[in-house]
Amino acid sequence: MTTLHTPGPTLGVVGGGQLGRMLGEAATPLGVELVVLDPTPDCPASIVARDQLVGDFDDEAGIKRLAERADALTFEIELADQDALERIREETGVPVHPHPSTLRLIHDKLVQKRHLADAGVPVPPFRAVETAADIRGAIDEYGAPVMLKARTGGYDGRGNVPVESKADAEAALEAVAGPAMVESFVDFERELSVIAVEGDDESATFPVGENVHEAEILRETIVPARSSDDVLDRARAVAEDVLAVMDGRGVYGIELFETKGGEILLNEIAPRPHNSGHWTIEGARTSQFEQHVRAVLGWPLGPTDQLEPTVTTNLLGDVDEPRPAALANVDRVLEHPGAHLHWYGKREARPLRKMGHVTVTAGERSGDLSQKALLERARSLREAVTFRDDATPAE
Amino acid sequence: MTTLHTPGPTLGVVGGGQLGRMLGEAATPLGVELVVLDPTPDCPASIVARDQLVGDFDDEAGIKRLAERADALTFEIELADQDALERIREETGVPVHPHPSTLRLIHDKLVQKRHLADAGVPVPPFRAVETAADIRGAIDEYGAPVMLKARTGGYDGRGNVPVESKADAEAALEAVAGPAMVESFVDFERELSVIAVEGDDESATFPVGENVHEAEILRETIVPARSSDDVLDRARAVAEDVLAVMDGRGVYGIELFETKGGEILLNEIAPRPHNSGHWTIEGARTSQFEQHVRAVLGWPLGPTDQLEPTVTTNLLGDVDEPRPAALANVDRVLEHPGAHLHWYGKREARPLRKMGHVTVTAGERSGDLSQKALLERARSLREAVTFRDDATPAE
Repeated sequence: MTTLHTPGPTLGVVGGGQLGRMLGEAATPLGVELVVLDPTPDCPASIVARDQLVGDFDDEAGIKRLAERADALTFEIELADQDALERIREETGVPVHPHPSTLRLIHDKLVQKRHLADAGVPVPPFRAVETAADIRGAIDEYGAPVMLKARTGGYDGRGNVPVESKADAEAALEAVAGPAMVESFVDFERELSVIAVEGDDESATFPVGENVHEAEILRETIVPARSSDDVLDRARAVAEDVLAVMDGRGVYGIELFETKGGEILLNEIAPRPHNSGHWTIEGARTSQFEQHVRAVLGWPLGPTDQLEPTVTTNLLGDVDEPRPAALANVDRVLEHPGAHLHWYGKREARPLRKMGHVTVTAGERSGDLSQKALLERARSLREAVTFRDDATPAE
Repeated sequence: MTTLHTPGPTLGVVGGGQLGRMLGEAATPLGVELVVLDPTPDCPASIVARDQLVGDFDDEAGIKRLAERADALTFEIELADQDALERIREETGVPVHPHPSTLRLIHDKLVQKRHLADAGVPVPPFRAVETAADIRGAIDEYGAPVMLKARTGGYDGRGNVPVESKADAEAALEAVAGPAMVESFVDFERELSVIAVEGDDESATFPVGENVHEAEILRETIVPARSSDDVLDRARAVAEDVLAVMDGRGVYGIELFETKGGEILLNEIAPRPHNSGHWTIEGARTSQFEQHVRAVLGWPLGPTDQLEPTVTTNLLGDVDEPRPAALANVDRVLEHPGAHLHWYGKREARPLRKMGHVTVTAGERSGDLSQKALLERARSLREAVTFRDDATPAE
């Protein structure tokens, strides 16, 4: 039986970027406070946290100070140090969600894939590789191209190298520069994702999103995805199977492929709220961030039904080199009925850095819009704003 | 043409209670930061503000320090000192919205009513009173009962004394203990309110709410109000007339009477986001708090259309004397699809103090509910939670 106090329960969060910021936005109405650990002073989440501790994601002393302030620990970045979290969990008794073992499992993509395949989750064919000859062997078996992936440290497509032919094997291995695996290249119809949440004796999934990537960075998420009901049902079922394998409560972002044949294959898992779930803030009855707060604390989960169709577009740093963050022409977004601006509070715009997002819903004057029309609208708003100060403002 | 920076524009807010807290919740996604001035350390808004300055609402040095940090000043409480705000506005050039003259106008209910009546806004008959004989004269003219109101300092019905008969005139005057006015008692069908917002060369009103008071404290707001379309249209038209009289940008809470004959009469104005507008957080496309941020900064306003029917119920301190805030049985609210909890972060529960609110929307499994059913649901949730630790939890 939950009782709310003031000050309320405190979540200690490793990482204070935009995910931590949106977590704080969702926590405050519930009376939940955040303390975050992040190396950047005045990090994005600091504005909605009771305090920021300045320290790296693997700063064990910092995580320990976080635990001293917190009723539960969580993380908003996979770089959180799983061993330090595990030690501190055992020493202090402060629960960590998701469980550090899940972070360890996900940290190494090869271990992750093996574990999931063993549990019956459909994944593309894969194998460990150590040498260029191993890569060529994989091409023999799967056909070219294949995807060479760094086993650890990849993010936003970094560490993923497509290998078009056997001749490219050496160069690809050098580019990855570390332990690697090869995956069969999936000729997908769509990239999908499901935000799933593991609670205390309950779990839930949100409606399926369709993701558009460019240069391996997420540009747009369209919800609901434009797949058949049958495919959508299977995507959620696979997400539920993934949850069953994960240890510890919390939100998981589960990226999937829909193959040309309508098959669902797991791509990757993020053990935290995910960029492709930002639509839930306006588009779902409970946001992924509120769900994460509820789940980590062991509170009842909220309903996951969608209120209306949405398209979310990321605002990436459209700059050639780092410069102070200044997004021009924002009136275009503010004036648009049904456009919802989210600014992440980063001080510096860098090439392709995620600086904010805009979620577009049908809006007041527009009635029922097709997803195609919503997508065009989202893109035109994104293209109207810019971090380049030499740009001519669009009309 | 608006450009967003990090750090974004800073609003200096006099007052850091629940309205400031919800203002901060709405400001963060827009990249807007708050600094608040409030006498209570760790006030409700402190968690979502960059900083809190500890000081009284009329602490001129404090307001000046606020201005030094702020791109614009606003207030979330009428106790903000209008003269200090006006002096600081002139000295520093930092804009204040709404204009301090509006605060002055609203501060004195007699001046307010005269000004509005002169502008053609329909108000109940009223007159200034200084003596018991004046009150008896008003009863002669309007008939009994009449409402005796303190001209200044009233809040949540404090300072309002019904006078049932001429024999009660002396006692009522003593109870009010200061400059007073008398208003004809309105035998209303419903109490309504309209959240209205004055922007930069534009204005807007939200759909009309129906307010249920007990002991002169707002208990529930039902939106849309259960009046005829004709009455609702007139309520919004009166709100627009009121806006035209107000000086300065921002959100106004405009309380109205719907008489038995379907006439609209102005009751009171709050020059700030209002308790009866909390439904807009989930129920409208733009919340009253986001509108206030946009308006004060001179940004474009957002759309005000309603997404679905709502009932908001206040969580009042159901205690006999002050005690540390602990709300038991919150699972009942968290588990309910379509119930949205807002906790204000006050450390002490006091008798009838506003500690939080719950907004109920139709929710996932409930389909289209009548407003009556929504109201019953909201009331049953409110009655399930309690600040009395001796209470038996409801099942």
